[in-house]
Amino acid sequence: MKLLEDMIREKGVVKPGNVLKVDSFLNHQMDINLFNEMGKEFKRIFADKPINKILTIEASGIGIACIAAQYFNVPVVFAKKAQSINIDGDVYSTSITSFTHKREYQVIVSRKYLSPEDHVLIIDDFLANGCALQGLIDIVNTSGATVEGIGIAVEKGFQDGGTLIRSMKQNLHSLAIVKSMNPETGEIEFAEDK
Amino acid sequence: MKLLEDMIREKGVVKPGNVLKVDSFLNHQMDINLFNEMGKEFKRIFADKPINKILTIEASGIGIACIAAQYFNVPVVFAKKAQSINIDGDVYSTSITSFTHKREYQVIVSRKYLSPEDHVLIIDDFLANGCALQGLIDIVNTSGATVEGIGIAVEKGFQDGGTLIRSMKQNLHSLAIVKSMNPETGEIEFAEDK
Repeated sequence: MKLLEDMIREKGVVKPGNVLKVDSFLNHQMDINLFNEMGKEFKRIFADKPINKILTIEASGIGIACIAAQYFNVPVVFAKKAQSINIDGDVYSTSITSFTHKREYQVIVSRKYLSPEDHVLIIDDFLANGCALQGLIDIVNTSGATVEGIGIAVEKGFQDGGTLIRSMKQNLHSLAIVKSMNPETGEIEFAEDK
Repeated sequence: MKLLEDMIREKGVVKPGNVLKVDSFLNHQMDINLFNEMGKEFKRIFADKPINKILTIEASGIGIACIAAQYFNVPVVFAKKAQSINIDGDVYSTSITSFTHKREYQVIVSRKYLSPEDHVLIIDDFLANGCALQGLIDIVNTSGATVEGIGIAVEKGFQDGGTLIRSMKQNLHSLAIVKSMNPETGEIEFAEDK
């Protein structure tokens, strides 16, 4: 998606250690006009799927998922990190290892909001090693619902997540796939989404 | 706001210990059509304020803030709980005590996204004891920006937060103010937003 690639080139910052900072428009400050264009693009890509629910994970997936949901006219469910006393005990649960935060955490979705009748589009802001996405797929599969597609804003194409999730025959599409990035020059090269 | 009050009455669940569960439409599964009506109402309430940014806090404030931002045509910044290695060290930081999670945590906003030129609308899903809100106000004040208003979806009017924040002369409006609720009958009474 050219608009997103342009914005990553213009406003993204490449840091050593394969870190791509896009917090000025994607995951700390959020550009809602961009999110609307991304939502329209997800709708175009997944138009032929019988999606009745969007699933994402807190925190930075929520904004993108909610804006996109307007184009599908469906509710959003977000998976929560760690147990809250305000969530019923009756939850689907999975364990995710976060590279960013260097720790493992539990992710939960109430059983009330995913069932075998659901056709789910999973949306998240980033795909790197694919751990969070595997956790969400695991939760959908456990519930008996169907994963109709996976929409990602930015995929780090040089990490394993994309290959891993595509090898699971998941209908994964990323709006921008970073093929390589250079922390010295700041140069970013994109691959095409097939 | 009648639509929100009706939905709380219809789908909210009152539990012992002053717990009001609205996770079927507000803060776990999210009803995006409702969020759009709430966004329009926030715009109506704060129409005369020169708002150029919306500030919220992860996780459940993000969806409401992003949908509302469409009616103000401004970006959203969400305060993050705990430090991530992907955030620059240069942050505004404050400490918040969570009643729900029974612990204290740090909340941060990058200095890049709040400055004295900003006129901020703070949005959150819940107002109970007001700790999270005080933290967000504190961050805006520290940055030199102006709090133009505070928009809350559900205020627990029988807890201290609303009184506290209004006594700070903040322009606070809640779309639904729960005056009392009965865990035995499930009855919920609302107060008017003045």
